[in-house]
Amino acid sequence: MQQSPNVLFRPARKGDVPAIVAMLADDHLGATREGDPHDERYLAAFERVDADPYDELIVAERDGEVVGTMQLSYLAGLSRLGAERCQIEAVRVVAAMRGQGLGRRMIQWAVDRARERGCAIVQLTSDKSRTDAHRFYDALGFKASHVGYKLALT
Amino acid sequence: MQQSPNVLFRPARKGDVPAIVAMLADDHLGATREGDPHDERYLAAFERVDADPYDELIVAERDGEVVGTMQLSYLAGLSRLGAERCQIEAVRVVAAMRGQGLGRRMIQWAVDRARERGCAIVQLTSDKSRTDAHRFYDALGFKASHVGYKLALT
Repeated sequence: MQQSPNVLFRPARKGDVPAIVAMLADDHLGATREGDPHDERYLAAFERVDADPYDELIVAERDGEVVGTMQLSYLAGLSRLGAERCQIEAVRVVAAMRGQGLGRRMIQWAVDRARERGCAIVQLTSDKSRTDAHRFYDALGFKASHVGYKLALT
Repeated sequence: MQQSPNVLFRPARKGDVPAIVAMLADDHLGATREGDPHDERYLAAFERVDADPYDELIVAERDGEVVGTMQLSYLAGLSRLGAERCQIEAVRVVAAMRGQGLGRRMIQWAVDRARERGCAIVQLTSDKSRTDAHRFYDALGFKASHVGYKLALT
């Protein structure tokens, strides 16, 4: 997969799961909703994502360390002449690497990958409080055209 | 599946595809991006959705006529202890039935179904111009917590 200076993007492996969970938790929103990185529910979710041909869990690796993650899901539907869309979820950069453009490079990489697959659209939602992230979505040409609704059931 | 007075919710069948596409197109946003309801790309997308155990294309039927549609996708990911989330896409009600509460009943039905499956969250995005829809999402307890970004590639 693509090599950027010092950072490699590649599919996540089972052994990356604790590092990914640690990034999900090290976040002002994630801190309250994640658990032990070795919880078997994370591994079960990894196995399902890994087995699904329409899901890609990606990590950014630098010097053998996982420094970023995001999940790409390729969604089918009838809309737009049956177009496939790429949805980006759970984008995180390790604390020590924030503010250095890695998040933006990850999203650019995802957009390029979606374009190569022939997706008609890339979509994501971002919590209203993540104003830093919004700047690079805007810069990459994303339109903040929608309201993102969530209903917690648990 | 659940029977509401005069309206039945059920999985879509291949023969429903033209009626679903007609609803997608009969919309101030969809009008410019849909095509011939018999275009084979719609059928191909239907086949993929129909074969995917994590996708449900639902129609609302009244007196043998398709009067509403929505797609439910059950997304896996590591976030929130590996929770499954239900995403609702492509919600449409036929013109003659709008403003009578059918859309709200469809979303309520989807939420109940997601809860039965054990999903942790139900999520959707809605174009900022769909202010009528926003009222029933609010009324059903959804929080407009996110910005929904889209990047068109074609």
